[in-house]
Amino acid sequence: MSETLRRVRVLVRPKEGILDPQGEAVRRALPALGFGGVGSVHVGRLIELEVEDESQVEDMCRRLLANPTIEEYEWEVIG
Amino acid sequence: MSETLRRVRVLVRPKEGILDPQGEAVRRALPALGFGGVGSVHVGRLIELEVEDESQVEDMCRRLLANPTIEEYEWEVIG
Repeated sequence: MSETLRRVRVLVRPKEGILDPQGEAVRRALPALGFGGVGSVHVGRLIELEVEDESQVEDMCRRLLANPTIEEYEWEVIG
Repeated sequence: MSETLRRVRVLVRPKEGILDPQGEAVRRALPALGFGGVGSVHVGRLIELEVEDESQVEDMCRRLLANPTIEEYEWEVIG
């Protein structure tokens, strides 16, 4: 393996209009814990990985890390 | 509800040394899909929420959004 691994952060979230049961669970739980003034809540996944070749990341997202039918994703090199 | 909601992004990940089975699953799956040169992989949660009062977010993280015993978190206002 190369010595030059780049750290990449991928954020995956449900697409607009797709059911987000985890987000809904959090949204309902917050007032019950005394936290008021909360609007929308969305829960997704965070994936942080080290890669040699960042040109592969877009494909990794489409083929494994996200489900493009129901999820949107974004990624960035963080180190 | 106030008209001035701030958007907050919370990133939650397993603490160093805590088992990360999702990360391990992704790390093993990538070479099987033809993606080489991958180092560590960690999978956590992304929570995006709108709040009136960002001073509550730290408490929300500790009490609901993360499990501070086994997870670390960071958050930032994104809008």
